[in-house]
Amino acid sequence: MKLHKQYAQKKSLLCVGLDTDIEKIPAFLLDYPNPMLEFNRRIIAATAEYAIAYKINTAFYECMGTKGWETMAETLSLIPSDIFTIADAKRGDIGNTSTMYAKTFFETMNFDSITVAPYMGADSVKPFLAYPDKMVFLLALTSNAGAQDFQWLKDGEKPLYQHVITTSQKWAANSVGELGYVVGATKADYIGEIREMCPDAWLLVPGIGAQGGDLQAVLNEGKTEKGGLLINASRSIIYAGKGEDFAEKAAAEAKKMWAEMGI
Amino acid sequence: MKLHKQYAQKKSLLCVGLDTDIEKIPAFLLDYPNPMLEFNRRIIAATAEYAIAYKINTAFYECMGTKGWETMAETLSLIPSDIFTIADAKRGDIGNTSTMYAKTFFETMNFDSITVAPYMGADSVKPFLAYPDKMVFLLALTSNAGAQDFQWLKDGEKPLYQHVITTSQKWAANSVGELGYVVGATKADYIGEIREMCPDAWLLVPGIGAQGGDLQAVLNEGKTEKGGLLINASRSIIYAGKGEDFAEKAAAEAKKMWAEMGI
Repeated sequence: MKLHKQYAQKKSLLCVGLDTDIEKIPAFLLDYPNPMLEFNRRIIAATAEYAIAYKINTAFYECMGTKGWETMAETLSLIPSDIFTIADAKRGDIGNTSTMYAKTFFETMNFDSITVAPYMGADSVKPFLAYPDKMVFLLALTSNAGAQDFQWLKDGEKPLYQHVITTSQKWAANSVGELGYVVGATKADYIGEIREMCPDAWLLVPGIGAQGGDLQAVLNEGKTEKGGLLINASRSIIYAGKGEDFAEKAAAEAKKMWAEMGI
Repeated sequence: MKLHKQYAQKKSLLCVGLDTDIEKIPAFLLDYPNPMLEFNRRIIAATAEYAIAYKINTAFYECMGTKGWETMAETLSLIPSDIFTIADAKRGDIGNTSTMYAKTFFETMNFDSITVAPYMGADSVKPFLAYPDKMVFLLALTSNAGAQDFQWLKDGEKPLYQHVITTSQKWAANSVGELGYVVGATKADYIGEIREMCPDAWLLVPGIGAQGGDLQAVLNEGKTEKGGLLINASRSIIYAGKGEDFAEKAAAEAKKMWAEMGI
């Protein structure tokens, strides 16, 4: 499995989030035919030594329309094939529609994994789990403030996010795809408990960096022998610099996070 | 407001879902430069007399890649400007990402509304509500079997879907955008209760037709003086015919549903 190999090879759990915003990239790139793509090309080249995964946030590409969708596909093709890729798309719909989304991200584009929203239940998630060698990261306990609105509602003794994990573990048991979860780094206190509920699952952990999560706490609670965590940082790495040396600054920031992991 | 005008003018609550699947459209269309677009063009022309809204299911376009994304934008431009449009996209992410999705569907493309998933809470939904004259349909009680997995979990006396409605009503009270809900026609028994919780909200009701919901029950429980319901049918209308006359068959099916509404 790509992630295990990358982890063993790079001693890293770093995932770099390509939340590429045309309004935030260095101005000199605007002279290139496709500034977002040029930005991504340089960020990927500069950080591939430390990153075991890249996460492409679909919103940042879709908002550029057709051209953005094309840039997403081209960006995916720039990522070295041994590095794991995530479509951060938060999709989820009735069965026949989720089947189309799975086709989009696993066939039309060849992502290794996708983030999926659980609200619509089993038939909205299972089509994504029908692909061998692909992974689904189901939203469990997210990093944002709004996580408190519904994810903590309690039925019986358990909050919703724990129901999502225990229920979806049953779906995964009968599927060829692999199931992981999105758990915000800002919720490190709960990662230990989540780890007990799914001992071998990969957790995609956004919220380090710009959102303020605690790296050491996340590692202590969630790391497994084979890795088990994808620590995502987006803005703190890709926008570390604003000038011609932005890629070097990004590399330095990625290296710093890699060193802080101390694996 | 477009929907009120359309309702008054057409005496209809019909929304036609453009879930256009290249594998299901009549074979003779494959000779056209863009078969999906030609299909949509004819379906729209044939059903516009009865439809007060068109719902574009983004999955069916995304799975065709860049070309599909372009077809979605072109399809949107084919819809007469007085008819209401819905991006059935089920998006929802942390605040800065939802802002990008809102930009995608309300600015890059000029949809009148979008479907949004509630799992990530307030900051994942509010960016969509920041647009005056636009509408958000938040998933509440969906039409699929998987709805039972999480939407019925009870915190205190209320199930999750009711928490979603009551909590989000507070967000809407402080927003310029309008908030409606997705409620499956297969859940008609609960529409009356939902109507009491949000007396003036538009409910987008999929599940009539291919999914088997009961039209009269939905109308009895959910219709308001100004309309208040968008009864969506996708497959049962757009795939009513398989031959050269598919658009006429679609029109006949739309007319039949319009007549059954008896408004």
